[in-house]
Amino acid sequence: MSVRENKNQSAPVVAVVLAAGFGTRFDPDNPKQLVSVGGKPIVCWSIEAFERCARVTDIVVVVNPKVRGEVERLIGEAGYGKVRVVIDGGEERVDSTAAALGMLAAAGIPDEAKILIHDAVRPFVAESAIDGSIDALDEYDAATVAFASTDTVLLTRDLGDRKVVASVPDRPDTYRAQTPQSFRFATIRHAYELAAADPDFHPTDDTRVVVDYMPDVPVAIVAGSETNLKITTLADIPVAERIAADLTHHMTREEAKARMHAMFAGAAAQMHRR
Amino acid sequence: MSVRENKNQSAPVVAVVLAAGFGTRFDPDNPKQLVSVGGKPIVCWSIEAFERCARVTDIVVVVNPKVRGEVERLIGEAGYGKVRVVIDGGEERVDSTAAALGMLAAAGIPDEAKILIHDAVRPFVAESAIDGSIDALDEYDAATVAFASTDTVLLTRDLGDRKVVASVPDRPDTYRAQTPQSFRFATIRHAYELAAADPDFHPTDDTRVVVDYMPDVPVAIVAGSETNLKITTLADIPVAERIAADLTHHMTREEAKARMHAMFAGAAAQMHRR
Repeated sequence: MSVRENKNQSAPVVAVVLAAGFGTRFDPDNPKQLVSVGGKPIVCWSIEAFERCARVTDIVVVVNPKVRGEVERLIGEAGYGKVRVVIDGGEERVDSTAAALGMLAAAGIPDEAKILIHDAVRPFVAESAIDGSIDALDEYDAATVAFASTDTVLLTRDLGDRKVVASVPDRPDTYRAQTPQSFRFATIRHAYELAAADPDFHPTDDTRVVVDYMPDVPVAIVAGSETNLKITTLADIPVAERIAADLTHHMTREEAKARMHAMFAGAAAQMHRR
Repeated sequence: MSVRENKNQSAPVVAVVLAAGFGTRFDPDNPKQLVSVGGKPIVCWSIEAFERCARVTDIVVVVNPKVRGEVERLIGEAGYGKVRVVIDGGEERVDSTAAALGMLAAAGIPDEAKILIHDAVRPFVAESAIDGSIDALDEYDAATVAFASTDTVLLTRDLGDRKVVASVPDRPDTYRAQTPQSFRFATIRHAYELAAADPDFHPTDDTRVVVDYMPDVPVAIVAGSETNLKITTLADIPVAERIAADLTHHMTREEAKARMHAMFAGAAAQMHRR
């Protein structure tokens, strides 16, 4: 991979789209990131969110080897110009992140690069969340998109074979983690090195690797949204279809507006010439 | 109110349905608990869940005075036989709970009564959650229905004007509180007395009153479900309509089965008589 130099930004902004999960309980013949919503495979929605964002310079897609061919075909067909490489992920989520970080290091990416790690199964990430993540990294070395919890969160402990409430945190301080989770390259790489040296640690979340291994590094919260949902089971598909329909409708209106603008600009130019 | 004696149970089981919230941002002319889903007002779904459960002996409905007439009319029309009284709630959720507890004390309800406090805007509470709550109170003095969080929960703190991550609890120990939240009468009453004496405390959750003021009383987790959702905004209505349709379909099938059984039983009796 060659990381593109961007004269308008101080550091490359690399989106890592994790599409290596293989949810077989979803549909044995069709892993969930390849399922279509609103007529488009979930993985394409996710890649496009970063492809569309002008400040993102490069995209790395991490896949399960079983679907590599299909994902590469989809990327080629759609013509996603920022996708530099499709790499194989690992057994677990952290293995996939680690694979991407290793590849970026080998490619000579600078320490100050901004790395946005995104779950492919969150197809409707808003541009404001991506922009907010890139901005947050100007002030912080780590950031995560998260959505304020509307339900009261209970922290539990085991009492015999029963879960009981251990504490009830203040609701304004409880968030549900979403993605992208974003880091300066040196920070996330160092956190992963520290975690790798601890055989007892199996993180399920990139933010947690930083929080647990580099506790002095504050991780900023970036505003997410209800629609940035994670598609986990078939039960999520109807909600996803509705969001896809809303977004498509909205985008079609924006396009119509843009065409209208272009027409008026053309007419104005014509008038000018007369 | 007269609390019915139930010879089959050691203690009365009283459901307190809190319908006093007045969500004006929802629909200025129609508070959300009166909005219909699946052709039935939300408050009726909630009352019916407890009316249908054979182990619940009594129901108390707490309302905003503005909708008292309408709620009483709905209860009369539907003929909910377990509703003993409709009382006025207070400014905040805890005021409504406190009003119900005061009324129950005045009615002479025994200390060991099981009190199930339920948000009216969670219309699809499952019978298993109600049964589980009643059972849990045989072993514990407090219990809450809750649903395991599928998202990683982040606990935050303020850093300047930004929220940053304070800690990331283990996901298996993070739950989203639902209702009913259930208590032996003496327990919840004592917790509320202690809370009332603390001018700084404004609980948004009944469980928290017990957790914070009676920390030695374990609160058991009872399995909730994704469908036991809280209807907060108009955006929740389409999901609610789908759940209502599923439940109605399911109930219709159950009724058809029951009718079939009755028919066969009738036919068998006929055959027997010949």
